[in-house]
Amino acid sequence: MTKVAARLSAIRLYVDAALDAGLTVEASEAQAHYLLHVMRLAAGATVALFNGRDGEWQATVTVPAKRRVQFNVTQQSRPQIATPDLWLAFAPVKRLEFLAEKASELGVSALLPVFTRHTDVKRVNVERLRANATEAAEQCERLTVPMVHEPVSFDAFIAAWPQDRRLFFLDETGEGTPLAAELMAQQKPTPAGFLTGPEGGFAQLELDALRQLPFATPVGVGPRILRAETAALAAVACWQALLGDWTSRPQ
Amino acid sequence: MTKVAARLSAIRLYVDAALDAGLTVEASEAQAHYLLHVMRLAAGATVALFNGRDGEWQATVTVPAKRRVQFNVTQQSRPQIATPDLWLAFAPVKRLEFLAEKASELGVSALLPVFTRHTDVKRVNVERLRANATEAAEQCERLTVPMVHEPVSFDAFIAAWPQDRRLFFLDETGEGTPLAAELMAQQKPTPAGFLTGPEGGFAQLELDALRQLPFATPVGVGPRILRAETAALAAVACWQALLGDWTSRPQ
Repeated sequence: MTKVAARLSAIRLYVDAALDAGLTVEASEAQAHYLLHVMRLAAGATVALFNGRDGEWQATVTVPAKRRVQFNVTQQSRPQIATPDLWLAFAPVKRLEFLAEKASELGVSALLPVFTRHTDVKRVNVERLRANATEAAEQCERLTVPMVHEPVSFDAFIAAWPQDRRLFFLDETGEGTPLAAELMAQQKPTPAGFLTGPEGGFAQLELDALRQLPFATPVGVGPRILRAETAALAAVACWQALLGDWTSRPQ
Repeated sequence: MTKVAARLSAIRLYVDAALDAGLTVEASEAQAHYLLHVMRLAAGATVALFNGRDGEWQATVTVPAKRRVQFNVTQQSRPQIATPDLWLAFAPVKRLEFLAEKASELGVSALLPVFTRHTDVKRVNVERLRANATEAAEQCERLTVPMVHEPVSFDAFIAAWPQDRRLFFLDETGEGTPLAAELMAQQKPTPAGFLTGPEGGFAQLELDALRQLPFATPVGVGPRILRAETAALAAVACWQALLGDWTSRPQ
């Protein structure tokens, strides 16, 4: 087994509570079930905890009652580190759980579902997306979990977008600048985000609206027609490689 | 609907046969079923065909007998174009169908399953992978389909790798050069390929063997521990963006 594989076998869990030496943290019902009945841990086992603020901590499992688990926080294993601030906004597609999982692994800081005019998917289970994103964060050794926003309409989305955050939208009409060229032309560190359209593409008036925005830039991902989720993940990967934290290595 | 959405609604099919004006091509049984019973096409409908060699052609559907479909090839809609020569070798993971589909969309020219020492998946359904890759190629407007190779052992894989093709292997130990830096240092056009390990990582002796190879280069994709399929697709996306055909636009 490699060093990495050995690290992957440790159980890591995201918690809301503050983490510090000597604190006791209550596991959620789902976590208790997972630890006791899926992973079959017993009292005294060690897990790693993170909450997005206090770094990663080792904790000892206790089982104060049937179906209840507590964590006794012992020592910090990694300090909290700053992570790239990249948002991913997307017209909901059928494979949303996959998108949330992969975006979390790739280090996106926020996920924003946007109902565009040609979006076929009419409902987003935000709680489910949060669970997917959290589980992926636990497994990929992130110290944060992406914030998953409630879905909004396209018009509300562009009205609320922060003016100082660059919005790269995936322009399937072929009029966008090639992605890498556009990213390499950016000054870092600029807060940024991507927006991907639905399978049916952006409506013409949405494209017109985006092209008017001073903070929005059309980008292209080549000659093939990518599925929406593929385009989103490809764009995020390129951003991390060129402007994000892929210049650093696993700790 | 955007221009792109309108194009996506056309049916595109991959065929083995030569394509030229006036030729008649027999549909496979699966294609006939798809056209007649899933898409409910009737004789006289138009589809697009490609075979990886002769560009894309318009063809008219005929139904010479129940459950049989033929294509009468009429005119070329796109000439064949050269596409980047990027191979993706991978230790088989559970989500192989997903990997084949996404790699095909992202423009990989060959898929090579490799049984490394820590690979848990013991069987690869090559025919199924070919079907996934072909279907994705049909939908993303490629003019080729990736070649899907039979699985081989790690040792056979490195013994057979062409010496003049750069092999970037995803090194989860953190000792690889950051991906973008390594790609930007490449001379183009160099034939290239990626190799990703299994969930358990490469065995130490595999890493040692890779590091000895003059044509192999370790690359890293940042501080998070990516699932094997995520790492593979992220790497391919970055290669296409920096060295591949993502500087060109949809036709």
